[in-house]
Amino acid sequence: MSIVDDLLAGDQRSAARVMRDLDDRMPSSAEHLKQLYPHTGKARIIGVTGNPGCGKSTLVDALVTRFRAAGQSVGVVAVDPSSPFTGGAILGDRIRMQRHALDEKVFIRSLASRGHLGGLSRSTSDIVVVLDAMGFDVILIETVGVGQAEVDVVEAAHLSLVVVVPGLGDEVQAIKAGVLEIADVLCVNKADREGVQRTVRDLEMMLSLRPEGKAPPPILSTVAATGQGVTELHQHLERLLDGRDHAAWRERRIRRARRQVLDILREQATDAVLLRLGDALEGLVEQVARREIDPYTLVERILHRGDAQW
Amino acid sequence: MSIVDDLLAGDQRSAARVMRDLDDRMPSSAEHLKQLYPHTGKARIIGVTGNPGCGKSTLVDALVTRFRAAGQSVGVVAVDPSSPFTGGAILGDRIRMQRHALDEKVFIRSLASRGHLGGLSRSTSDIVVVLDAMGFDVILIETVGVGQAEVDVVEAAHLSLVVVVPGLGDEVQAIKAGVLEIADVLCVNKADREGVQRTVRDLEMMLSLRPEGKAPPPILSTVAATGQGVTELHQHLERLLDGRDHAAWRERRIRRARRQVLDILREQATDAVLLRLGDALEGLVEQVARREIDPYTLVERILHRGDAQW
Repeated sequence: MSIVDDLLAGDQRSAARVMRDLDDRMPSSAEHLKQLYPHTGKARIIGVTGNPGCGKSTLVDALVTRFRAAGQSVGVVAVDPSSPFTGGAILGDRIRMQRHALDEKVFIRSLASRGHLGGLSRSTSDIVVVLDAMGFDVILIETVGVGQAEVDVVEAAHLSLVVVVPGLGDEVQAIKAGVLEIADVLCVNKADREGVQRTVRDLEMMLSLRPEGKAPPPILSTVAATGQGVTELHQHLERLLDGRDHAAWRERRIRRARRQVLDILREQATDAVLLRLGDALEGLVEQVARREIDPYTLVERILHRGDAQW
Repeated sequence: MSIVDDLLAGDQRSAARVMRDLDDRMPSSAEHLKQLYPHTGKARIIGVTGNPGCGKSTLVDALVTRFRAAGQSVGVVAVDPSSPFTGGAILGDRIRMQRHALDEKVFIRSLASRGHLGGLSRSTSDIVVVLDAMGFDVILIETVGVGQAEVDVVEAAHLSLVVVVPGLGDEVQAIKAGVLEIADVLCVNKADREGVQRTVRDLEMMLSLRPEGKAPPPILSTVAATGQGVTELHQHLERLLDGRDHAAWRERRIRRARRQVLDILREQATDAVLLRLGDALEGLVEQVARREIDPYTLVERILHRGDAQW
């Protein structure tokens, strides 16, 4: 049996190995993904985003428990744009997930940044393919909602949940319009703090600026740490996942597909050129650094001249 | 005279038009950049990053004033990953810059996300080329420091300043290791709040985990809103910019050049394929959405089969 067969048969060790190979960009990975893809399409994918400190991890944790209680298996991809040199170990916020560690129906995978632009979205998408093929009913993608790359990650989900906290001022800067634009559900977490009503009002005002024809998303309140409001949030997500009309889902599916194709295309097209250049790249970069050629002309030549010269 | 000549002669209106053309990805832009590039290389470029609410904008504002007082002209690129549908207008934090509005030696440009991965870094780099060619002595790139794309933006500067605020707990999550790794100077802003000493100690601990051989960056304290400590910060930046040893600058220049070449290459290589596909792309995306083909096989065929079929 191949490793992919083992994975499809439910072997989590094989799954972890396939994911590690993906991280390392092993040549075998492309083949694995192609074999896994026909087994995907069943999972319901929810993106969860919010600023650092909004309690998003605790909320995801609480949602995992609710989905499990409802008999569903859950995969989690935690996208952490920290550097590989710590592996996120300083932050250690993954530890919270330990209470699901013995539950075979929960699989948690942290993803550090790939260190190059576009890599984050591509890597997340690949891991989601693996989790989907493994048969998880629900996949939660948890990411920090400030950067564009992270917004793109969430946009690739079926449904997106944006988490904010009470108190504007400093916080308002963080609720970037791009994040609000993609929200299907808004959640004001840490709702035991002061200023919840004000935050809800401000959000409603900001949401009224969304493009016409788009219904504003519902705004729910939770205290993830105590569980307050989490059951309602879970039920709301379930309803949205079940009840979405056909047209809306179709649109979202096409958007997901477009994102996947473009992410893969962007990476492969670039890799093809870099592979052709090989060691010559560093010499060319040094020419630019020495100002012997401008980078625009250089790239033009690389792309149009083919193999000549380089 | 061409628009580029006008720009080089100091006409800010022409500069604004060239930048707008860059935003709109006008075909003429590539030519403009090539013409401008030989006039670049003189500006000293400082990246400023930090989480939402760290007072980074106020600090940049205060630094602009200090550099101006020292007789230097200053260009500012404020990278705002908000969506184009508001243009960041809700947040309106650019208003703070108004007090420099009548100063011809200050030029401020806000950049929204380009809506596609890698676009942010590429766009910023292009705007920096324009400002550099315009002859600005100092260019400040201000960006939110959480996402990978934004970290990449700052990495392309000569010097990077990372801004944090006192009080860890929630905040610690936000000081991503990737951000600390690129810091040349750390600044604890809002230093009139409680917990400054603790924050400095925690930062020192985190910095001790940096790769060997890299000296830890200095940690300064400021209250940007009142100006406290800003003069010292400014002097420190000046010293670093002036006094860096040749080898360190060379390394940074090569890193900048590599980033530029890869950003341009990634975009152009992808655009070349997309141009060739034209309207066929949407049909292919729908095939993926209908699951008639997997995205991995699709991209493989697009890249290897050339124009056949599509």
